[in-house]
Amino acid sequence: MGILRLAIAQINPVVGDLEGNVELIRDLIDKVEHCDLAVFGEMSLTGYPLEDLLLKPGFIADNKNALNDLASMSGNCALVIGFADSDEENVYNSIAICHKGKIVGSYRKQNLPNVEVFDEVRNFSPGSDSLNLFSIGGVTIGFVICHDLWVPNGPVKTLVDGGAQLIVATNGSPFHRGKQQEREILVNEISQENNVPVAYVNLVGGQDELVFDGGSFITDSAGEVILRSPRFHESVLVADLSVEKNITTENYLPVIEVSSRRDHEGIIETSIAPTLDTFEELYLALMTATRDYVLKSGFQQVCLGLSGGIDSALVAAIASDSLGPNNVTAVMMPSRYSSIHSLTDAEQLIKNLGIASVNFSIKDIHSIFLEQWALNLNEEILGVADENLQSRIRGVLLMAFANANNWLVLTTGNKSEAAVGYSTLYGDTAGAYAVIKDVYKTGVYDLARWRNESAGHEIIPNSIIEKPPSAELRPDQRDDQSLPPYEILDPLLKSYIEGDRTRAELVEDGFDAKIVDEVVQMVDTSEYKRRQNPPGVRVTRKGFGRDRRLPLVNRYKG
Amino acid sequence: MGILRLAIAQINPVVGDLEGNVELIRDLIDKVEHCDLAVFGEMSLTGYPLEDLLLKPGFIADNKNALNDLASMSGNCALVIGFADSDEENVYNSIAICHKGKIVGSYRKQNLPNVEVFDEVRNFSPGSDSLNLFSIGGVTIGFVICHDLWVPNGPVKTLVDGGAQLIVATNGSPFHRGKQQEREILVNEISQENNVPVAYVNLVGGQDELVFDGGSFITDSAGEVILRSPRFHESVLVADLSVEKNITTENYLPVIEVSSRRDHEGIIETSIAPTLDTFEELYLALMTATRDYVLKSGFQQVCLGLSGGIDSALVAAIASDSLGPNNVTAVMMPSRYSSIHSLTDAEQLIKNLGIASVNFSIKDIHSIFLEQWALNLNEEILGVADENLQSRIRGVLLMAFANANNWLVLTTGNKSEAAVGYSTLYGDTAGAYAVIKDVYKTGVYDLARWRNESAGHEIIPNSIIEKPPSAELRPDQRDDQSLPPYEILDPLLKSYIEGDRTRAELVEDGFDAKIVDEVVQMVDTSEYKRRQNPPGVRVTRKGFGRDRRLPLVNRYKG
Repeated sequence: MGILRLAIAQINPVVGDLEGNVELIRDLIDKVEHCDLAVFGEMSLTGYPLEDLLLKPGFIADNKNALNDLASMSGNCALVIGFADSDEENVYNSIAICHKGKIVGSYRKQNLPNVEVFDEVRNFSPGSDSLNLFSIGGVTIGFVICHDLWVPNGPVKTLVDGGAQLIVATNGSPFHRGKQQEREILVNEISQENNVPVAYVNLVGGQDELVFDGGSFITDSAGEVILRSPRFHESVLVADLSVEKNITTENYLPVIEVSSRRDHEGIIETSIAPTLDTFEELYLALMTATRDYVLKSGFQQVCLGLSGGIDSALVAAIASDSLGPNNVTAVMMPSRYSSIHSLTDAEQLIKNLGIASVNFSIKDIHSIFLEQWALNLNEEILGVADENLQSRIRGVLLMAFANANNWLVLTTGNKSEAAVGYSTLYGDTAGAYAVIKDVYKTGVYDLARWRNESAGHEIIPNSIIEKPPSAELRPDQRDDQSLPPYEILDPLLKSYIEGDRTRAELVEDGFDAKIVDEVVQMVDTSEYKRRQNPPGVRVTRKGFGRDRRLPLVNRYKG
Repeated sequence: MGILRLAIAQINPVVGDLEGNVELIRDLIDKVEHCDLAVFGEMSLTGYPLEDLLLKPGFIADNKNALNDLASMSGNCALVIGFADSDEENVYNSIAICHKGKIVGSYRKQNLPNVEVFDEVRNFSPGSDSLNLFSIGGVTIGFVICHDLWVPNGPVKTLVDGGAQLIVATNGSPFHRGKQQEREILVNEISQENNVPVAYVNLVGGQDELVFDGGSFITDSAGEVILRSPRFHESVLVADLSVEKNITTENYLPVIEVSSRRDHEGIIETSIAPTLDTFEELYLALMTATRDYVLKSGFQQVCLGLSGGIDSALVAAIASDSLGPNNVTAVMMPSRYSSIHSLTDAEQLIKNLGIASVNFSIKDIHSIFLEQWALNLNEEILGVADENLQSRIRGVLLMAFANANNWLVLTTGNKSEAAVGYSTLYGDTAGAYAVIKDVYKTGVYDLARWRNESAGHEIIPNSIIEKPPSAELRPDQRDDQSLPPYEILDPLLKSYIEGDRTRAELVEDGFDAKIVDEVVQMVDTSEYKRRQNPPGVRVTRKGFGRDRRLPLVNRYKG
C-alpha cells in the first residue's frame, strides 16, 4: 500500500500580479517540501479570471517566464501550478507540473465554460493534446481543470480507464449560494462512478464581481469527503492518501514518471472544515469580496452613506467586519425629509460597530439647488426630479469625501432595488463597490437578523429591522407605495431574472398578472441604470454583472 | 441565360420588437413581389445582437411564431429572413426561406464569432446540418450567414463545388472605420476564387454601442461590385442578375426546388452608391447611432452640457444634425473658472446650429458646497476634489433637466479622455449616451473641421477649434498640464488599446519611455471609471465597451 502525501494549497492570488503571486507560491514551497505533490488552483500563477489580459501576447510571455522562475525553485515535492500556456496560434488554460527545478509536464483544459460569468471561449482555445498520466510518489495521477468535471464525457473516464489512481482537479470556481454542496455532489458521483479518489482544489478570495470561496476537498474512491479546506480562507492542508487500487486496463495512457515512492514519517491527520449555514456562507462571501476589492485595489478605508435604513446598516456591518471598524466612516446626510428615528438608529449602529461617522446635512445645499432652479428657469423641481436631486447631492458629497481622503465609496443598494430601478443613478448608486447588489431585500433582512444572532446581541438595531422601509425623499414616503411588498416582489424577480421566465409564463406560475406586468416593465426599463452601476459581488446563479447581458434598446415585452 | 430578379432589403429592425419588425418586413412584401428573391439581413426578424434575450425560451417561441406569421404572407417572391431557430437543446442563428405562404427551407450559421463585441458561442450553437442548395427563379443558390464568410474553410467552397451559381450572405456586420473596404476586399476574393457572384446583405441602424452601416452589395463572378446600397440608410435595391455559369461537379448537393424561372418585364438598372470618405462615414456613423439610441429608446429630445470646448461643440453638431435642432438643448453651466470666450464661443455655436439653450451658472451652488464643507468639517475642498465637485454639480443639473423634461443626456467625452481617465465619474461622464467615446481627441478636431468644410461655412466656430483645450476647473488650466500633447498621446493610446502592446513593446516601437509609463498607468488605473461610463457608439476595432473586457483589480504593469 502506497502513501501519497498531498498538499492542497488553497491560495488567494491577485489578477495580473505575476511577481506577487510567484512570491505567494514560492513562500509555500518549503512548507510542502515534505509532501509528494502540492496542488494550487486554476490559473494560480496569474489570478483568475484574466479576461482580455489574455489577448496581450506580452502578458502571455511574462506569465511563462514567471512559471519558469517558479519551476526552477521546485524541489522534491511536485508543484501543480495554473498558468496560461500558448503555442504559435493559441492560448490555453493550463497547469504545469514542476519538479526538481523543471517543468515535467502540463495539461491544457479541454472544456471551456462560455456561460454565465465565463467567457473562456473568447480568451482560450480548448486543449486537444492526447492525454497523459503522471506517476508522482508512485501513484498514477490524471489531471483535469474545473469545467472538465462539469461536462458530460469529460476526460475523467478516459484518465481512469487509462490507469489513473487519483484524479486531481484544479479549479477557479466562484461562489454562489449553495455552490459548495453542488460541487461535493458532483465529485461524489464522479468518484463513485469511476471508483477513484478526487482532489478538488479551489482558489479563495475576491476578484471584481466574483468571490472564490475555497472549500477545496478530497473524496475517497467511495465519494466520501476525507478532507475539506476552510471556506473563504487561505490554507494549506495535507493528506496522506493510501491508494490501493489495482489497475487492469487495456487502454493504458502514457505515463510520465515524475517521482517515486517516498517514506513519510508518521501519518498526517487530515482535517475536515465544517460546512457553513446558508447565511453564514453568504455573509462571509460578502465580507471576503468587499475586503479583497478594497485591499487589492490599493485602498485601506471606505465610506458609505448611512441613512438609518436596513440596507446601509447591513453594508456598514459587513464593511466593519471585513475591514475593521477603524477603516469605515459612516456619512449621515439628512435632508428635510429625514425622520428623527433614522438619525438615532444610525447613531446607535455607529456606536454598536465602533466606526467613525460624520453628520452632514444636505438641507442648505438642497435649498440652493431649488432656489437657483427657480431663479434660472422660473419653475420648480418637483416629484422624481427632486427626489433624484437629493440622492445625487449625497452622491456628490460621498465622492468628495472619497476624493479628499483617498477612501473608496461603498454603495448600499440591494438586488430588488437594482432589478426594478428603485434607485438614483449617480445618487445612491454612486460608488466603487456595491456590497449587497446581488442580495434581494428579503435576504437583507435575513442577514441582518443572522448577524445579530451570531453576535448574541444587537449589532444592527432592531428598530432598523422592524420599521417599514423608506427612501425618505418626500414626506411620509414608503417603499410599498411604489413597489409590491418584498415578500411578493422577490420571488417574482427571482423567477424573471434567474429563471428567464416570460410575462406569460410568470402568470402561469401563479403570480398576479397586474403585478407581473408592472414589475417586468420596471426591470426591463431600468437596464440602462444597471449598465452604469458599480461592480459588486455575485452570490446567486445570475447576478447583474457579466451574468446577464441584455440589450439596452430592447422592445421585447415578454 | 436566366435572369434572377434579386431584391436587397437593407432594413433597420429594433432588437426584441417582433411585432414592429414583422410590420417592417411585411410592408416590403408587396414592393418586392415582382422579384424572385428578397434578402433581409442577419436576425432581421428579431434585431441584432439579441445577447441574453436568446437565453429565454419564451422569446425563442415568440420569434418562431412571428416567423410563421411572416411566412404565411410570402408570395411569389421568396423571402430570406433572419431569425433564431431552435431544437430541443440548442438555439441557432438562422435564416428561413419563405415562399408562397410556407417556410421552404432554412440554414443555420456554422461559424459563430466570439471575439471583439461578439458573444455568439454564448448564445448560439453552431449549425451542423448537411448543406443544401435552393433553386429559386431557376438559379441554384447557396446561403451563408456573416462570419461564415470570414473564416478559412467556411461553407462557400462546398456550396459552389456542390453546384451553387450564386452565394447569398446575410449579415449583421457592425461598422468600424474602414470596414466597408474590408468587406468588399473579402467578397471580391471569394467571388474570384470560386468564380461565383455573391450578394452581401447587411443591416443598417444603431443598436446600443454598435452601428450597422448598410453598404450591402453584389459582386459578379469576377468580384466586381455591380450593386451597392447606400451606407447608413434603409433601402431596397433590385438587381437583375444574369447567371450564366454552367455547373459540372461530382459533388452535387441536394437542391430544394423553390420557384422556377419567371419572365421579367424590362431590365432593372442597378445602382451603385458611392463610397464615402473617411470623415463622412465616421460622422454618419456617429449620427446614426445617436439618433437610433435616442429614438429606439422612446425619447425625442436630448440635452448636453456645452462648455465652449471642442468636444461638446462636436457632440452638439452631431445631435442637431441627427435629431434636428429643435430636439437639442445646450446647457451652459459656467463656474467661477470659466473664461469669457467659452461662453461667447458656445453662444455662437448655438446660434449656428439653431438649437435651444439654457445658461445656468453653478457659481452659487459651488460656493455653498464649499461653505458647508468648511462648516461641517473645518477644512477646505481642494485640488482634484474641488475640480470633481464642479463637474458633478453640472452632472446633477443636467440630470435634473433630463428628469424634468423627459430628455436624454448626451455626454461629450472623447476616447483619449476615457482612456486616461481625464474625466469625472458622475460629473461630465453622467448621461445616457456617449456620442464620441470611441473618437480620439485628434479625430474630434478632424471631424469638426470636416463638418465646417462640408457645410461650406463655419458651423463650429474656428475659435473653438483653434484654442488650446482646457477643462476650466481651476485658474488657467490646460489639458497639456496633465497629459502629453494629443498628437503624441493618441497614437500611443491606439497602440496600447487597439494593438494590445505592452509597456516594453511600446518603448521598442519608439515611444518615449517616460510618457509610456505615465500613460499606461493612467489607462490601467481608470478602468473603474470606464466600467461605469455610459454606452456610446463603437467606431474602431476596439472600443471601450464589450470589446475590451479587462479586470478592475489588475496588477499587471506590462
